[in-house]
Amino acid sequence: MARFFGTPDGVQPGQYFADRRELHEAFVHRPLQAGISGTGSDGADSIVVSGGYVDDEDYGSYIIYTGHGGNDPSSKRQVADQTPDARGNAALITSMIRGLPVRVVRGPHKGSLFAPTRGYVYSGLYSVSSWWTQAGRDGFQVVMFRLDAIDQRTHVEPAPLVENDPAFLTTTVSRRIRDTAMAREIKKLYDHSCQICGTQIGTFEGRAYSEGAHVRPLGRPHLGRDDASNLLSLCPNHHSQLDLGGLFISDEMVAFDANTGAAVSELRWRKRHRVDLSNVAYHRSLWRPITRANM
Amino acid sequence: MARFFGTPDGVQPGQYFADRRELHEAFVHRPLQAGISGTGSDGADSIVVSGGYVDDEDYGSYIIYTGHGGNDPSSKRQVADQTPDARGNAALITSMIRGLPVRVVRGPHKGSLFAPTRGYVYSGLYSVSSWWTQAGRDGFQVVMFRLDAIDQRTHVEPAPLVENDPAFLTTTVSRRIRDTAMAREIKKLYDHSCQICGTQIGTFEGRAYSEGAHVRPLGRPHLGRDDASNLLSLCPNHHSQLDLGGLFISDEMVAFDANTGAAVSELRWRKRHRVDLSNVAYHRSLWRPITRANM
Repeated sequence: MARFFGTPDGVQPGQYFADRRELHEAFVHRPLQAGISGTGSDGADSIVVSGGYVDDEDYGSYIIYTGHGGNDPSSKRQVADQTPDARGNAALITSMIRGLPVRVVRGPHKGSLFAPTRGYVYSGLYSVSSWWTQAGRDGFQVVMFRLDAIDQRTHVEPAPLVENDPAFLTTTVSRRIRDTAMAREIKKLYDHSCQICGTQIGTFEGRAYSEGAHVRPLGRPHLGRDDASNLLSLCPNHHSQLDLGGLFISDEMVAFDANTGAAVSELRWRKRHRVDLSNVAYHRSLWRPITRANM
Repeated sequence: MARFFGTPDGVQPGQYFADRRELHEAFVHRPLQAGISGTGSDGADSIVVSGGYVDDEDYGSYIIYTGHGGNDPSSKRQVADQTPDARGNAALITSMIRGLPVRVVRGPHKGSLFAPTRGYVYSGLYSVSSWWTQAGRDGFQVVMFRLDAIDQRTHVEPAPLVENDPAFLTTTVSRRIRDTAMAREIKKLYDHSCQICGTQIGTFEGRAYSEGAHVRPLGRPHLGRDDASNLLSLCPNHHSQLDLGGLFISDEMVAFDANTGAAVSELRWRKRHRVDLSNVAYHRSLWRPITRANM
């Protein structure tokens, strides 16, 4: 069975599970022992945060999470370095770069205000927003992750935050790169290369980063469809330019620069993938005053 | 006085103001008549949503907002086309491309569940997430904006949402481009060009788009500083690569590709701007297993 990402039908954030067996049977967290479910090629579909690592920090809407390996289960101390190649760590790195949602389960954890006192609570979907390495409290290198709760209407915050993160209080968000299961399919089809310029943004050990661009925008009022006929795999530069009206696509599937009117490139296509003419026409109509007559 | 962006000291989201004069005196919305405060070169610092336009739609956490012009104040109908060059519209377009926060004030509006029945309520900061043109309900071209509430701890949601946006329920956010006042200064200093490759992403009428990249990450656990010594102006491609560990900066301020170890480019600098060596060293240390020995 293919690995399942997202919240299973019939499961709610905040739901209680008595033990790992119940988590397994509900498809919330399949492994009975491991804290991270997933592989480097698939990504990670779920994790359990349960206080097994001294470097973990739980802030409710975000979690600083220690990766897998080098831990002595009896003392819960690190006894060896961790590596990003270890299965669970490689899985979470792939989840970050691919934008995959991770189910977070909280188990009992004395250091966390958000943990249940016994059993397990499904806490909803989180995204892996960064990974890094550091010297852990026990002196060995650990692989660390920051996971942030995904801003979805269905997400139930386990409890109010007790502490703010001062650095974020003064920030605004100028762009959100939204991702969907279908967008991830299209990015994969193009091996994370840009259909306009061919660029592949390299990150870690050959994992490339690209973005799924909806030609007719998702959400109100445009209500573009989340399907292959409305999706392109683009590099961040061409994605931002497309979204901001600096780039248009003609009916001949040529990308044009909106300011100069010059052709940038023909789009590159893989077998069995085309976007609908109606979607590129809708996108052009969004900026009628700046769309050139010859498009 | 320079235009002020953000929430003034002493003002709270949810605060009531009896009339436009009170909004003016509290520095919440300075103009006594106009719905949009700002100019094309500065950006828009505030708007009033008050039901003057038939194409407005208020969903609480986001607003579909009609731009300025072509409106007959007595009938509230459109009687002429709007253009993106009109002062208020140009201001909101600049706010979108630059990532500036916009103060949103709600006035009485029969079509909105979130509007007060009389007077004005300050609803906090929103970001302009897109703009486009469309044929309005009255048959003339209108310039439209979507504004989304900024996810800040200080933001008070006026009321629960009554409707979900189905297209967003299945999406996850894989990257958030965070912006700060200092990041906007640095982007401006470089005229929105990338310090690694020189690229300027063109959008509309010469407005370029770039991103402010914090070298040592903001937020827990890294707690990088939001100041010029920790900021670069980058194109989205190099920003994502820097954040994902695919790019490192040496003490000689040369950007290196983490996968190949090859030098990409010396960084370009404007007068009076340098980043601290400690910040590029911190960034390199984040991915020690993949940082080359020669860096």
